[in-house]
Amino acid sequence: MTVTKENGPRELRIPDGDDRERLLCPDCGYIAYENPKIVVGAVVEHEAQILLCKRAIEPRVGYWTLPAGFLEMGESPEDGTRREAWEEARARLELTGLLAVYSLARISQVQLIYRASLADPSFAPGPESQEVALFPWDSLPWDALAFPTVTWALERYKEVQFLSELVPATNPVGRPIRWAE
Amino acid sequence: MTVTKENGPRELRIPDGDDRERLLCPDCGYIAYENPKIVVGAVVEHEAQILLCKRAIEPRVGYWTLPAGFLEMGESPEDGTRREAWEEARARLELTGLLAVYSLARISQVQLIYRASLADPSFAPGPESQEVALFPWDSLPWDALAFPTVTWALERYKEVQFLSELVPATNPVGRPIRWAE
Repeated sequence: MTVTKENGPRELRIPDGDDRERLLCPDCGYIAYENPKIVVGAVVEHEAQILLCKRAIEPRVGYWTLPAGFLEMGESPEDGTRREAWEEARARLELTGLLAVYSLARISQVQLIYRASLADPSFAPGPESQEVALFPWDSLPWDALAFPTVTWALERYKEVQFLSELVPATNPVGRPIRWAE
Repeated sequence: MTVTKENGPRELRIPDGDDRERLLCPDCGYIAYENPKIVVGAVVEHEAQILLCKRAIEPRVGYWTLPAGFLEMGESPEDGTRREAWEEARARLELTGLLAVYSLARISQVQLIYRASLADPSFAPGPESQEVALFPWDSLPWDALAFPTVTWALERYKEVQFLSELVPATNPVGRPIRWAE
């Protein structure tokens, strides 16, 4: 949520019947409840290769990421994952399990990362990607990944690659985050 | 989000650089991005009994539910689950796995339901509960459960009761929702 000091909800107050401060707009009385956001995405494999997207938008332009993005209203996490893969990589997915639930509490984000395979072998960059490519495991661009959770999800994918039933991972313990997210 | 026609964001427009309509406030220009909300909760067991809370607040006052509620900003799903169990049932939890990820797309809600046990045997109603009680499986108040997802989660709990590693369930297929949520 973008809040400026000039307009919109900008005063912290505890509304009646609530137990914590919320942002209110002193002009119109509107209460802006802020809620954590859900990111959905997938580690997508095709013939032992992983599909990644080179970001065309901030943050982390030029770095590689999973097809992923914010869940929209009225959408299931599975549908949102398929939508993001289409928007960013023109890829159609078959989901094969929930790979991980990552919590980025500092930025109030919960990520649901699925495992998926390509339903058909076509893909192409959507408007938010410079490039979309399949990488063999040994050639993944580890030093050019966009976010720590991409690294986590890829490593988790490898750990459970041959399992049909997935127990979703949570944040890895003791793994340093190598850059600010 | 509560929106009235008199104040707050109430005009649908596609903001620059976006691809779908968002609610704008014509008085102050504020854009209210709406996002799906995350509910966290737990099926809590203690000595082969299940802890349920009788709701003291709308909706579904007087019906039984899991300790659960909206994830707050800056919180991990696990911390949110423990907070809700404390607020509603004065219970301290040990989480033992992610039992289910339910999608209520029509109301833009994703529910993360954990399995948990009581860390110590004390509990008591918090301000949002009329009563908190432990039920043996054979005496669960099936006809007085507050929401369909409570039924789903309890049934799922039973299915995987003796498994140490949980593959989270999703919405059951072909199970009728017995009342509107």
